[in-house]
Amino acid sequence: MSEALKQVVIVGGGFAGLNAAKSLAREKRVSITLIDRCNHHLFQPLLYQVAMAGLSPADIAAPLRSILSKQKNVRVVWGDVESIDLEARQVEATFGAVPYDYLLLACGARHSYFGHDEWEPFAPGLKTIEQATEIRRRVLVAFEKAELTTDLNERRKLLTFVVVGGGPTGVELAGAIGEMSRFTLERDFRNIDPSLSRVILIEAGPRLLQMFPEKLASRAMRDLESMGVQTWTSSRVTRIDENGVEVSGDRIHAATVLWAAGVQASEIGNQTGFERDRQGRIKVQPDLSVAARPEVFAAGDLCSLMDQGNQPLPGIAPVAMQQGRHFAKVVTCDLNQQPRPPFHYVDKGQMATIGRSCAIAQIGKHHLTGFPAWMAWLIVHIYFLTGFRNRIFVIISWTWSFLTFKRGARLIVSKNWRFYDQRSAHDPDAQSMEPTALDPTSIENTSK
Amino acid sequence: MSEALKQVVIVGGGFAGLNAAKSLAREKRVSITLIDRCNHHLFQPLLYQVAMAGLSPADIAAPLRSILSKQKNVRVVWGDVESIDLEARQVEATFGAVPYDYLLLACGARHSYFGHDEWEPFAPGLKTIEQATEIRRRVLVAFEKAELTTDLNERRKLLTFVVVGGGPTGVELAGAIGEMSRFTLERDFRNIDPSLSRVILIEAGPRLLQMFPEKLASRAMRDLESMGVQTWTSSRVTRIDENGVEVSGDRIHAATVLWAAGVQASEIGNQTGFERDRQGRIKVQPDLSVAARPEVFAAGDLCSLMDQGNQPLPGIAPVAMQQGRHFAKVVTCDLNQQPRPPFHYVDKGQMATIGRSCAIAQIGKHHLTGFPAWMAWLIVHIYFLTGFRNRIFVIISWTWSFLTFKRGARLIVSKNWRFYDQRSAHDPDAQSMEPTALDPTSIENTSK
Repeated sequence: MSEALKQVVIVGGGFAGLNAAKSLAREKRVSITLIDRCNHHLFQPLLYQVAMAGLSPADIAAPLRSILSKQKNVRVVWGDVESIDLEARQVEATFGAVPYDYLLLACGARHSYFGHDEWEPFAPGLKTIEQATEIRRRVLVAFEKAELTTDLNERRKLLTFVVVGGGPTGVELAGAIGEMSRFTLERDFRNIDPSLSRVILIEAGPRLLQMFPEKLASRAMRDLESMGVQTWTSSRVTRIDENGVEVSGDRIHAATVLWAAGVQASEIGNQTGFERDRQGRIKVQPDLSVAARPEVFAAGDLCSLMDQGNQPLPGIAPVAMQQGRHFAKVVTCDLNQQPRPPFHYVDKGQMATIGRSCAIAQIGKHHLTGFPAWMAWLIVHIYFLTGFRNRIFVIISWTWSFLTFKRGARLIVSKNWRFYDQRSAHDPDAQSMEPTALDPTSIENTSK
Repeated sequence: MSEALKQVVIVGGGFAGLNAAKSLAREKRVSITLIDRCNHHLFQPLLYQVAMAGLSPADIAAPLRSILSKQKNVRVVWGDVESIDLEARQVEATFGAVPYDYLLLACGARHSYFGHDEWEPFAPGLKTIEQATEIRRRVLVAFEKAELTTDLNERRKLLTFVVVGGGPTGVELAGAIGEMSRFTLERDFRNIDPSLSRVILIEAGPRLLQMFPEKLASRAMRDLESMGVQTWTSSRVTRIDENGVEVSGDRIHAATVLWAAGVQASEIGNQTGFERDRQGRIKVQPDLSVAARPEVFAAGDLCSLMDQGNQPLPGIAPVAMQQGRHFAKVVTCDLNQQPRPPFHYVDKGQMATIGRSCAIAQIGKHHLTGFPAWMAWLIVHIYFLTGFRNRIFVIISWTWSFLTFKRGARLIVSKNWRFYDQRSAHDPDAQSMEPTALDPTSIENTSK
């Protein structure tokens, strides 16, 4: 019996991988190995709220082991995949080789700086918890430094926040910084008025939120403006350094720049010669398998597939979840010796939030804006959040923030755990890792 | 009017500093500057729960600015004090000089490795949020690596946890690791049985919890044993390295060693020539001022003062809070030209928790153990926790953990924010910072 078990290897415990594993829960003919670099599944749609001090990392993450502890046919392994041996049908991981009968590649995407990787230290992206707490640290430190400095140019630079990329993540980040500076921090500072800070959202295309209908997108832009966010469309970033950004010749001095522009699919299996699209996503057949390799599949942000209208499917959670479940279905069909069904994306709509009581949503032909869209956004995100405990915590956090205008996780946390045990809080190691590190030593004299 | 304001400078926003600032809220004749390296006040008595994945950092910390935002006579400054000019009566900080009429030094203590600072990388202490998340990372990573390895000696080492120091923090850490391995992680692993892990608590003195009556301490020891914690008393650590610890000639192989032994007062004002005790604490007069410097005070863990029985006051939160309030009283007395009262510590008792439904408490002559002591411990800690939101979150976390046996913050988070954006998850920078760093690359081949 055990001999006959089909080995299913899933690389990545995001929306696609986790849904694939869960959908195979009752399939007794398979043994599943789920490999991930993180020990947790991350609910990425709310990651920007960790970056903006609204939620704690643990509120939107749950240990993969814990999620799958009752599912006996899954083994969770914490590690990193180095290469794939397509002939031997095995995955080479940091902890050894894992043979497979079915392989699902679902390890997502990272940021792409369009060939300018040197911009990364100055403009972090938002894909991991580590990046979210780093962004939180930079934003909070900028306000602290602005309070201390007496140099007006320096203060102006510190209170300027640039977000590059006008997609949903960029809009959410820019809106949240606007909201935080206008409401949350307002009363807490003595020398500066946080509500005077500038938030500039830069988009290379002609408008924000290009996947949304034009009317909804322009409503979002007006909503952003009411939160103090200035949007610059048709503006291409040509340089990012420690002083700020250069945009088609213009120069903006900013201490904090956040990157929410391009993504690049994970490089996994690069050596396999799979056909990829411009963003590095693996091109798949209608059943999600790779051409000429019916036992290898890709799903989620790593997968390139056209929808009925011959548009590439967007890199969003619903697509990844449905693709993960589809992979499970294909495996079961194979085991039952039934033909494989093609994948069809069921589009239930899309939404983006801008801030307090303010969002846009498109559900079929229905458009929602303002408070109704925001309520819909809240309900959908709570519903899909993994884990009962996380739901409770997020509901309470949001209620508390809504009533008090405060944010519950306003912590500046150093990257070095020995930080505060040193005589000086300013560790050279920490500095060398990050050119833009803001620390009080570089602040000019302050007035009393 | 503004000329006549007395400048009060408080260094450190812990229990002593924060209580001093708050107690001066209605004192219109002073202007207060509170300087801290962190932007938050940390509720240290619950820090071990962050290290043990039970609570999120934000649950036990609150921004100092936010706590004091309504108190108009306080200015909160994020920075680091470098020296004190006693003659000029000013504090030299990273952001400039701050003159004072009254100075309160309340910047606490850090760990002391008794002259063996080379042990620190292998045995982190627990004083800051950074250290707590590092300890959490190490403990969780040890279980993950133990699951992967097939080398039985390696696995044995990975599942051995050594805690050095049998005071309240050591007891709490050891009890929590025991509890986590027995209850929380039990069902989550396939290759290992976490409940077989060894937890060894090492104390140099003849018994644990020496500040407690002997009967309570021995009850605590039995309770710890029932959670699988082995206690080694009268055992002196002679070496700590990447393989584990050496104890009076014995050798314990352990991947995780935690330090909860000696403390050393902060070195602030070392250049001032203040008289200090063996732990580096500043010796103060009965009114908490420094000899011959009636305008300079010390409080909390940085302050050395004998109680009525001629014993030094312990470094615990109630002492610090009362001393902070006493400083405020002395300032007011001076302004009213009244004599300064001496400080008297009102001892309301002490408690230590061991684990689930299990604690010890001494309240006057009354001794509590087991569940009643645990309930008393819960209520007191919730009561003193800063901030309504934090109380709610901690209550819900504890209720959830009690009912489900789970822990809500089981996240392995890297120290490097660019960690997961690299092709390899194993960044050389992160490694070089920490010799014992556990990462999957060093794991031997695993069995299927």
